[in-house]
Amino acid sequence: MSKVNLKKLASELGVSISTVSKALKDSYEIGQDTKKKVLEKAKELGYKANPYARYMRYQKSSTIAIVIPEMTNSFFLQVINGAESIAREKDYHLLIYITHEDAQKEIDILNHLQNGRVDGIMMSLSCTTTDYSHLHACINSNIPIVFFDRICHEIETVKIITDDFASGFAATEHLIQSGCKDIAYLSISGNLSIDNKRMQGYLEALDKHNIKQDKRRIIKCTNDDKSNYKKIKTLLTGSKKPDGIFASIEKLALTTYSVSKDLEIKIPAKLKVICFSNLATADFLNPPMTTITQPANEMGAAAASQLFKYLDKKGTEIKNENIVIKSALTVRGSTL
Amino acid sequence: MSKVNLKKLASELGVSISTVSKALKDSYEIGQDTKKKVLEKAKELGYKANPYARYMRYQKSSTIAIVIPEMTNSFFLQVINGAESIAREKDYHLLIYITHEDAQKEIDILNHLQNGRVDGIMMSLSCTTTDYSHLHACINSNIPIVFFDRICHEIETVKIITDDFASGFAATEHLIQSGCKDIAYLSISGNLSIDNKRMQGYLEALDKHNIKQDKRRIIKCTNDDKSNYKKIKTLLTGSKKPDGIFASIEKLALTTYSVSKDLEIKIPAKLKVICFSNLATADFLNPPMTTITQPANEMGAAAASQLFKYLDKKGTEIKNENIVIKSALTVRGSTL
Repeated sequence: MSKVNLKKLASELGVSISTVSKALKDSYEIGQDTKKKVLEKAKELGYKANPYARYMRYQKSSTIAIVIPEMTNSFFLQVINGAESIAREKDYHLLIYITHEDAQKEIDILNHLQNGRVDGIMMSLSCTTTDYSHLHACINSNIPIVFFDRICHEIETVKIITDDFASGFAATEHLIQSGCKDIAYLSISGNLSIDNKRMQGYLEALDKHNIKQDKRRIIKCTNDDKSNYKKIKTLLTGSKKPDGIFASIEKLALTTYSVSKDLEIKIPAKLKVICFSNLATADFLNPPMTTITQPANEMGAAAASQLFKYLDKKGTEIKNENIVIKSALTVRGSTL
Repeated sequence: MSKVNLKKLASELGVSISTVSKALKDSYEIGQDTKKKVLEKAKELGYKANPYARYMRYQKSSTIAIVIPEMTNSFFLQVINGAESIAREKDYHLLIYITHEDAQKEIDILNHLQNGRVDGIMMSLSCTTTDYSHLHACINSNIPIVFFDRICHEIETVKIITDDFASGFAATEHLIQSGCKDIAYLSISGNLSIDNKRMQGYLEALDKHNIKQDKRRIIKCTNDDKSNYKKIKTLLTGSKKPDGIFASIEKLALTTYSVSKDLEIKIPAKLKVICFSNLATADFLNPPMTTITQPANEMGAAAASQLFKYLDKKGTEIKNENIVIKSALTVRGSTL
């Protein structure tokens, strides 16, 4: 099938390319009759504006990118769902990139995105990212970045977060009120502000309830599932075992379930477990898992909407703003 | 920061834009000294080729699209993960579109993709799609489509599938061997070939074991969770209750768990459940769920790889081919 472009339309109609182009843009320079003829012919031949040719004219890609650290966490799934809906509504296209928690991959991806492929980026940092030059470079190239969940404090921009401190506090206090006296915190990365805030909430709740803080109860996990399994197993086989675990992210709670199953430690009788999670199956787990549920879909939609606010008014400088969407505690069998 | 483009490089070096462009393309027309100077200056100023300008020169977007029906199924999650890895390897970009099982959304998306935004598409049909004109239109516009999982038989192309018939047969035979005598099949959509093949496998296994087929045992579910809940509840409260359920997709098995919990029907004592699923939490469910596990990551990677095979040799006509990657039965507590 031969390509239907402006040239082809112009030749079919016997007018200039410029006339066709202006007619399609509804320019005041072109009469109504001509406009009607051009639109009819465009429809008849199935003309579709080429996005690359459009970009060359308007310097607008109508594309945004979402950069996420992993695909096994149900939180990011729901974020993508929320972001994609808003992008479709706005007639934008959504590129997806996964860093797999690898700082170098994140740098490579951001470097690739500086060349105009996208109008803006929404992202959540990898847990190994410690240097932020690649983020500054993007912003210096006039590609706005909106953060969600795993934000970068150093960058002045819009950040969509949940109330990590308050939720970390509430999770820990819930364990205490359920009878726990010795609570361990499973950290995913000291580099991540969400992790630090959740841990601060944990420490604050211990303090409020006069439970002595113990650094050995803060377990530094990583992105390596096997190593996490070992660390949690060591924690749960020591001479002094915790009676409660607060996992900063979903997969650490699932590893805790796995270790408990293998060691035949009964949850919640011997060990109570709570975590940040958006698992659709939390209700059906054995036992059902008490979670701090983040408004993931809303956070994805909010991040996309905020980005579009700035893309709609190109040239507006993006303001530093933290938008907090609250999480909710859902009590289930793992802490009863 | 002012934009570094060919013009800027040319002006900095005091040469023509054409010289810069040819030097960057390593043209034989340009001397080694000049090439070296251009490359050094490009690096110094942080020049990055604009993808849209590149497209206008080479008619290649370096972008593919993945179109999936929903984001709640862990199968699609893993497919995206597999496809993204291959795309990154190939230095391609991946656009994501979700049809939410809505045929009209699928049509709109495919129509949008006919204009050169992507070089190719990998997709899984929505369960409400019954007309395929939008797929033919894409292929007629020289945008190849590779299908995975939910394929369209009518289109001559590469289709990445699993052994749905054999797996449906194996799932049903496993229920029979576990003692089930009255097995219901939960269908997600009569429009989908995967659903039909799984059901054919189910019927064949009943036949082999001399169990009479009963149309009332084939429950036609939809994309509406509430309506599915009601249908499954009706099935499980009738005067004659099935003792086994084979769910064609994950979410129907989870709804079965939900109904069973509410009706206090013990799984597996009173009802055995098996389904096609890639749930990471299958092991931790109450009871752990027996699944037919699809090689989702591999299927995503294979679909992307097959698409690239054709994109690498532009102009090659895509062959009709079914590539089968086998699923595996994992027996867990729900059928013991």
